[in-house]
Amino acid sequence: MGSRLEEFQEFRSRMNQRILDVDNRAIKRFFGVDTLTYEAGALDPRTKEMLGLVASMVLRCDDCISYHVIECKKEGVTDAELFDIFSVALVVGGSIVIPHLRRAVALLDELNAQEAK
Amino acid sequence: MGSRLEEFQEFRSRMNQRILDVDNRAIKRFFGVDTLTYEAGALDPRTKEMLGLVASMVLRCDDCISYHVIECKKEGVTDAELFDIFSVALVVGGSIVIPHLRRAVALLDELNAQEAK
Amino acid sequence: MGSRLEEFQEFRSRMNQRILDVDNRAIKRFFGVDTLTYEAGALDPRTKEMLGLVASMVLRCDDCISYHVIECKKEGVTDAELFDIFSVALVVGGSIVIPHLRRAVALLDELNAQEAK
Amino acid sequence: MGSRLEEFQEFRSRMNQRILDVDNRAIKRFFGVDTLTYEAGALDPRTKEMLGLVASMVLRCDDCISYHVIECKKEGVTDAELFDIFSVALVVGGSIVIPHLRRAVALLDELNAQEAK
Amino acid sequence: MGSRLEEFQEFRSRMNQRILDVDNRAIKRFFGVDTLTYEAGALDPRTKEMLGLVASMVLRCDDCISYHVIECKKEGVTDAELFDIFSVALVVGGSIVIPHLRRAVALLDELNAQEAK
Amino acid sequence: MGSRLEEFQEFRSRMNQRILDVDNRAIKRFFGVDTLTYEAGALDPRTKEMLGLVASMVLRCDDCISYHVIECKKEGVTDAELFDIFSVALVVGGSIVIPHLRRAVALLDELNAQEAK
Repeated sequence: MGSRLEEFQEFRSRMNQRILDVDNRAIKRFFGVDTLTYEAGALDPRTKEMLGLVASMVLRCDDCISYHVIECKKEGVTDAELFDIFSVALVVGGSIVIPHLRRAVALLDELNAQEAK
Repeated sequence: MGSRLEEFQEFRSRMNQRILDVDNRAIKRFFGVDTLTYEAGALDPRTKEMLGLVASMVLRCDDCISYHVIECKKEGVTDAELFDIFSVALVVGGSIVIPHLRRAVALLDELNAQEAK
Repeated sequence: MGSRLEEFQEFRSRMNQRILDVDNRAIKRFFGVDTLTYEAGALDPRTKEMLGLVASMVLRCDDCISYHVIECKKEGVTDAELFDIFSVALVVGGSIVIPHLRRAVALLDELNAQEAK
Repeated sequence: MGSRLEEFQEFRSRMNQRILDVDNRAIKRFFGVDTLTYEAGALDPRTKEMLGLVASMVLRCDDCISYHVIECKKEGVTDAELFDIFSVALVVGGSIVIPHLRRAVALLDELNAQEAK
Repeated sequence: MGSRLEEFQEFRSRMNQRILDVDNRAIKRFFGVDTLTYEAGALDPRTKEMLGLVASMVLRCDDCISYHVIECKKEGVTDAELFDIFSVALVVGGSIVIPHLRRAVALLDELNAQEAK
Repeated sequence: MGSRLEEFQEFRSRMNQRILDVDNRAIKRFFGVDTLTYEAGALDPRTKEMLGLVASMVLRCDDCISYHVIECKKEGVTDAELFDIFSVALVVGGSIVIPHLRRAVALLDELNAQEAK
């Protein structure tokens, strides 16, 4: 599954660049706002990434969940904290969130295995 | 609008009690899990309420948003922090969140006006 | 709240008629399919109304929930059965369903009070 | 209902201003992108408002639907064209859209009655 | 596709166990409530599985749909009854449900082919 | 990825036929209404396909997006117009739409590469 993660990240980077190369101001600016949103403000990036993760889980978007799990790990969010975030997503969003939870935990295990090397 | 807030809280408490009086184990236990989820764990209740708020906003549920704004205020979340949470919800969830943002800010203004008395 | 229920039903009937008076074939036929769907087939109308109710709850549409609670009552679905339907909606859809559950139970109480007269 | 429409517009303008007065760059810029999106580009504003309307209907946001119905009328979208937009929303989004359709048509009737004066 | 079904079931079991092994009370209890919900109450498990299926379809979660189609078959729900459930999901949820319907029917055909062996 | 597009179209056609062969009147008629909706009315099929595309994007259904991108191309919608549609979907639906936007643009590139041959 290591290759699946790399594929996701390669496709994500390549297509984001492809989209930003298009001459469409609204889309370009939206991407700018998206980046700005997670920068330090009244809340620090760590908390903002946790917010982005729970929002992605209740809206049930696997790619968004993967992205924010990776960012949360970079910000030093622990596994126990991640499971607390997962619990809020599960209770607010219901059992329909469970398949996404399974995939999020599989990704987390993969990230932890990479780190352990 | 003070009365609207009181009405919301009175209806909420009364109907929750009405529902818990029914002999349905799954519903009772679900309410129990809901309460448990926001208690201190790896994350503190303050962070968990912020997570509950952003999840409610992207799922666009006014009553849930009202509830979590009130709880966030109780946990000492500042207005500037609340607007950071709102910004994440807006960018993740899109302009469809704006009507709920307007109502959340109106509620916040009302809560602040009550405090100022 | 009796008047609120009557208002809902009057507005619903009047606007449905208004919409069907418009010369738009796709909309007219969609309304026809909608009616057909709840008629007896391999499943009886009683079961189909229960399915319509749980679908409306997880999609969080108050008017649709009200309509299907009323239809379920007409089909003889008991209160205990309704709460079982509510429990499935709650667990599948999460705590975001709770505000709609409160309003559904308030409507149910109102319908039962009318019957008891 | 004329007053309901005015109330909606007054609350919308006042709260948007209130939100833009807050010192939160991500929210301010999001509002800027939102405005930019409906300006003339490869598609004209008339087509973009129609797109905004159908998107609001399938996401089932009454305030957004009201806003885009008003803007579509300003752009000269006819009633027959509006009902074609409604039909796409209905078929893509399902019967769960119907309560919003009823309210959209009630608003349209109100706008047409005002014009007829 | 037989292997796809086995893969789904193997991944589902393995990750559910992985998640339950984590020391997070809210998640553990949520899984408990989820199991409890489909047990016999005022409604029998057969009806509850049908409710779970229609809820999963309108929320458009392929894994949840697969799970409930399998459980419905175990409870003796016939193909004609399944298609009646699908019709309610389709009409309530709209054409956006169709891709999930196609995959649900493909799974059903696969399950029937296995039985026929 | 050429084969992925062909696979999608083959699976789509085959399963649609499989579903229409079933004796379920509501499903058959729903498919009929779905076809009718995109035929010329007050709006031409080109505009209707654009509406179908934006609705599919904000509801985040990849198969529906693929289908409508293909139909838009057949109706002569240009790439610049498609990106304007994408911008409306992005702003209304939020960053949660971005993964679907990436896949939509990848499909568009594939379709353009086929045409260029």
